Amino acid sequence: MDSTIMDYNLNIKSIFWRIEKLYKDREIISRTHEGIVRYKYSDFALRVRKLASLLKANGIAGETVASIAWNTHRHLELYFAVPLLGGVLHTVNVRFHESEMDYVIKAIGDRAVFMDKDIAYRNSTLPTFIFDETYDENVNSQEPTKDFTDVDEKEGAIACFTSGTTGKPKGVVYSHRSIFIHSLSLLTADVLGISSSDTVMPIVPMFHISAWDLPFASLMTGAKLVLPGPRPKAEDIVKLIKEFKVTVGVGAPTIWIDVVNYVERENLDLPLNVVVTGGAEPPLGLIKKLKELGVKTYHAWGMTETEAIATVNKSDNIERMSEQGYPIPAFEITLMDPEGNELPWDGKSTGELVARGAFVTKMYLNDKPDTQIRWFRTGDVARINPDGSVKVVDRLKDLIKSGGEWISSVDLENAIMSYEKVLEAVVVGVKDEKWGERPIALVVKKPGREVSEHEIIEYLKSLNKFPKWWLPDKIIFVDSIPKTSTGKLDKKLVRDQLRSMLESNK
Amino acid sequence: MDSTIMDYNLNIKSIFWRIEKLYKDREIISRTHEGIVRYKYSDFALRVRKLASLLKANGIAGETVASIAWNTHRHLELYFAVPLLGGVLHTVNVRFHESEMDYVIKAIGDRAVFMDKDIAYRNSTLPTFIFDETYDENVNSQEPTKDFTDVDEKEGAIACFTSGTTGKPKGVVYSHRSIFIHSLSLLTADVLGISSSDTVMPIVPMFHISAWDLPFASLMTGAKLVLPGPRPKAEDIVKLIKEFKVTVGVGAPTIWIDVVNYVERENLDLPLNVVVTGGAEPPLGLIKKLKELGVKTYHAWGMTETEAIATVNKSDNIERMSEQGYPIPAFEITLMDPEGNELPWDGKSTGELVARGAFVTKMYLNDKPDTQIRWFRTGDVARINPDGSVKVVDRLKDLIKSGGEWISSVDLENAIMSYEKVLEAVVVGVKDEKWGERPIALVVKKPGREVSEHEIIEYLKSLNKFPKWWLPDKIIFVDSIPKTSTGKLDKKLVRDQLRSMLESNK
Repeated sequence: MDSTIMDYNLNIKSIFWRIEKLYKDREIISRTHEGIVRYKYSDFALRVRKLASLLKANGIAGETVASIAWNTHRHLELYFAVPLLGGVLHTVNVRFHESEMDYVIKAIGDRAVFMDKDIAYRNSTLPTFIFDETYDENVNSQEPTKDFTDVDEKEGAIACFTSGTTGKPKGVVYSHRSIFIHSLSLLTADVLGISSSDTVMPIVPMFHISAWDLPFASLMTGAKLVLPGPRPKAEDIVKLIKEFKVTVGVGAPTIWIDVVNYVERENLDLPLNVVVTGGAEPPLGLIKKLKELGVKTYHAWGMTETEAIATVNKSDNIERMSEQGYPIPAFEITLMDPEGNELPWDGKSTGELVARGAFVTKMYLNDKPDTQIRWFRTGDVARINPDGSVKVVDRLKDLIKSGGEWISSVDLENAIMSYEKVLEAVVVGVKDEKWGERPIALVVKKPGREVSEHEIIEYLKSLNKFPKWWLPDKIIFVDSIPKTSTGKLDKKLVRDQLRSMLESNK
Repeated sequence: MDSTIMDYNLNIKSIFWRIEKLYKDREIISRTHEGIVRYKYSDFALRVRKLASLLKANGIAGETVASIAWNTHRHLELYFAVPLLGGVLHTVNVRFHESEMDYVIKAIGDRAVFMDKDIAYRNSTLPTFIFDETYDENVNSQEPTKDFTDVDEKEGAIACFTSGTTGKPKGVVYSHRSIFIHSLSLLTADVLGISSSDTVMPIVPMFHISAWDLPFASLMTGAKLVLPGPRPKAEDIVKLIKEFKVTVGVGAPTIWIDVVNYVERENLDLPLNVVVTGGAEPPLGLIKKLKELGVKTYHAWGMTETEAIATVNKSDNIERMSEQGYPIPAFEITLMDPEGNELPWDGKSTGELVARGAFVTKMYLNDKPDTQIRWFRTGDVARINPDGSVKVVDRLKDLIKSGGEWISSVDLENAIMSYEKVLEAVVVGVKDEKWGERPIALVVKKPGREVSEHEIIEYLKSLNKFPKWWLPDKIIFVDSIPKTSTGKLDKKLVRDQLRSMLESNK
C-alpha cells in the first residue's frame, strides 16, 4: 500500500534550513593564516548565499569543483554553497603530490580550484580561487542568492579520493542523502550524542572524508564548531580547546598522542569531555592517559568507503576499548570467508568485514555500476563478538603468511606498543625462502629510553599471547616510521624500503 | 553528478536487523491480561519470524490488517511482522465506537483483525485473531520465516486514523522510511536522546500514531522497553516504573497529572529521569511538581499528520516550558496567513503553523494525491520565536471570534487552570447576537476545594494578561469534562452540549 507521506529530500538544503532558521546566534570559530575568525551561524549562512552567487557569476554553479584546503570557515562555506547549487565539492588531500592532485582533479573533471594560500599546487588551465583578502572581498561584494533548488537527495554532494597506499587514488562521491543520514546517525545518543550545548573541534581534515561528517552533524544540531586551521600542532590544539571550551575533539590517535604528551610535558590540564578517535586503533596507553586527564574516549571505525565513522565503541571497560564497537544506525555488517560465505559472530571466527548501509559506497568513481552488489568488501579482517562488537585484526593485505598460517601484523604492533619503552612500532612481512613470509618489526623508542631487541622479544613472550612462530625475526630500531598523507602508518612504503634494504644487504 | 553510494532501504527490516543482531539480550516487558511477560529481544525476534509464518499460512502476508489492541508484546510483534512482509498494520483506536471501527476497517480495506480479548468489536466477515493462549500456541507452533524481502522504503508500514473530533476519522499511512527517519531523529541528543541504557515506557497508545514511534526508536538503539498493557491506571504505571526501573515515561499530560496526584497521595517517590509529554500543553503546575519529584519534563508537539513528536522543548526555564519547542531534524515549519503568505518569526505574529518533512503526510487515505503540496497545514494557530521555538496558541477551529477580534480559548484555559483551586477547565465560544461569539468556561474544582465564578474572574483580572473583553461571560462548574478517545478535551462535544443546554434554557 502506498504511504501518504510527502516526498522530502534529505539534502544539504534541509541542513542549511536548520542553520539559518534555528541557530542564528551559535558560533563558528576558525583558525586561519590571518588569525582567529569568529562568526555566527547567521553570518555563515549569509556568506554561503554570497559564495553561491560568486559560483554562479563564474559559471561554475552546479559543477564539480576542487578544494585544497585546511579546516577553516572558508572551506566550510564551500561545503554548503557548492552542493546547495547542485554541484559536487571535491575535497583534495593537501598532502598529495602535485602529480596526484593533477590525477584526481582530471579523473573527476573539476571545473575550478579553491585553495588555501600556502598550497603549492598551480594548475594553469582551471580558474583558481585562493583564500585571501581579495577572495573574501569578492565573496562579500556579491548579492546573496535567494533561493536554492531542492536537489534530489541521491545526487552527489561531496567527493573524496582514498589516500591510495596501494595503486592510484580511488574516488567516492557522497550523496546529499548519505551525508544527512550519516550525520543524523552520529547525533544519536548511543553514537556520538553531540548536542547544541557541545563545542566540537574536528581535527580530522576536511580534505578527507568530509572531516568524518562532523561539520554537517554539528551544524545540524546547533553545536559550536571550532575549526583548527592549517597544520595544527599539539600546542595550537590545546590552546583552542582551552580558549573556546571545546567539549568534543575528533582526530586520529597520533594527534591525541601528541596532545597528551604536550599537556604532560607542560603540566597542563585538558578540559575536554570526549575524544573521538579512529582511522587506526588507539593504543590502550593513550586511552588510559586521557582517562587520567578526565577525558572519555570513543573509539570509532570506518573508512573512506563508509563515510568514516560506521562503528563506535564507548565502553567503560578499558580492556574492551581495542574493539571497534557496534554498527551505528543505517549501517550493517557481517563477516565473510574468501568464498563469500557468512561466518558466525562468535568472537573467534576471522573473516573479511563486509558492510552495507545508507552511507556505504557501492563502487568507485568511473567504475561500471554493479547493481547486484549486496555487500561492500572492506578489506579489513575482523572478528565479531556475539553482541555485535567488531574487532578488526588486520588489513587483508597486511596479513603475513608464514608457513601457510596467518600472522596478524596489527596484533604484534599493538603488543609491542604496549611496552612502556616503545613509542611506535610497525610490523611487516618480508619474503623468506623457507616460510614464504616472516614478520619484521620497526620500532621507535620513547625519547630518552633504551631498549634492546632481546628485551622486546622477551616481553612479547611474557604476554603468553602469541605462538612462537609469530615472534618477529628481527627488530630494527628507527627514528620515525613513515606515515601516509592521512597520518596512518605507511606499511606499503615500509615494506618497499625494507625490501630494498634487505636486498642491498645481500 | 551521480553519487557512488549504494541504494539502502530505510525500512523496518533495517531496524529488525539491529534488534536481532546487536541487542539479543535486551529486554521487553509487557503487562498483559494474564500478568507480566518478560522476554529478550532474541525471543521477540523469533516470535516475529513465527508470526510472519502465521500471516503467510492465513494468506494475509503483504496485506493490510487491523489491530485493536493495548500496548503489549503481542501488539509489538505485529508492528514488525506485518511490515516485514510488505503489509500495512492498521492500528485501530480501541476507544472507537463499533460503528467507527467498521468505518475505518472498510475505508482502508483490512483483510483480518487482531485484537485483545477485552475488545468488544465483532466483525463477522473478516478472519479474527484474539490474543489469548490459543493465539500464542498458534504463533509458537509455526516455523520461523527465514528471509524477508527488502521492502521499498516508500511503501506503507503502519496506518492510523485521526480521532475525528470533526467529521469522519481520516487515515494516514506511514512509510517504512518515515518511521526509520523519525525514530532516528528522536534518538538524537537534542531530541529525546534515548540510549541503550534507558528503559522506556510508552504509555501513549500503540493504537494511535504508533505510540509516537517510541517502540521503533527504543528497539533501534537497544533500550529496554516496558509496555503498560490494558487500561493502565496511575497505580499500575508507578508500579511498573519502580519494578522495572523505567527512566523515560511517555504520555499525555492527563496521565502524568494522575500519576503525580497518586504518588503525592500515597507519599511515594517517582524514580523516573524524564517525562516526555505532548498531545496537549502540560500545565506548568505539573512540570513544577515533576521537577520537585526529580523528573525532567520534555514538552513535545506533533499530530497524527506529523507522526507525533515533531517539535520538542527541553528548556530548563520553567517560564518557557509552555512553548512547544524546536523542530526536530528532517522537519521544517513556518507560519502562514490565510492567504498563504509567510509570516515573520518574531514571537508576535500569529498565523497557521505549516509543516513539511520526512514524516509529514501530504494527504489523507483515499484522497487524490496533490503532487504540488509544499506545506501541510496543521490547523494549529501559533507564534514562532526568533530562535525557532514554536508557541501554539490555539486550534484554528477553537479560536473564538468576538466583536471581530480573536480570543484564544487555550490561553484562557491555561490561565484558569493555573488557579490553585481548579483541576481542569475548558473554554468554548457560544453564539452571541451582539458579539458573534462569546467565551464560556467549564471548570472542574479540585477535590475538596470551593471556588466561585466571581473568584475566578477576579483571578484572571489579577494576571494583567487579558483585555477585559476576553474574560468569559459565564463560568459553569461541572464534575468532569468530556475527553476524546485519545484523552484530549473534547471541545466539539462541549460546544454541542453547551449549545443545546443554552437553547433549552431560552
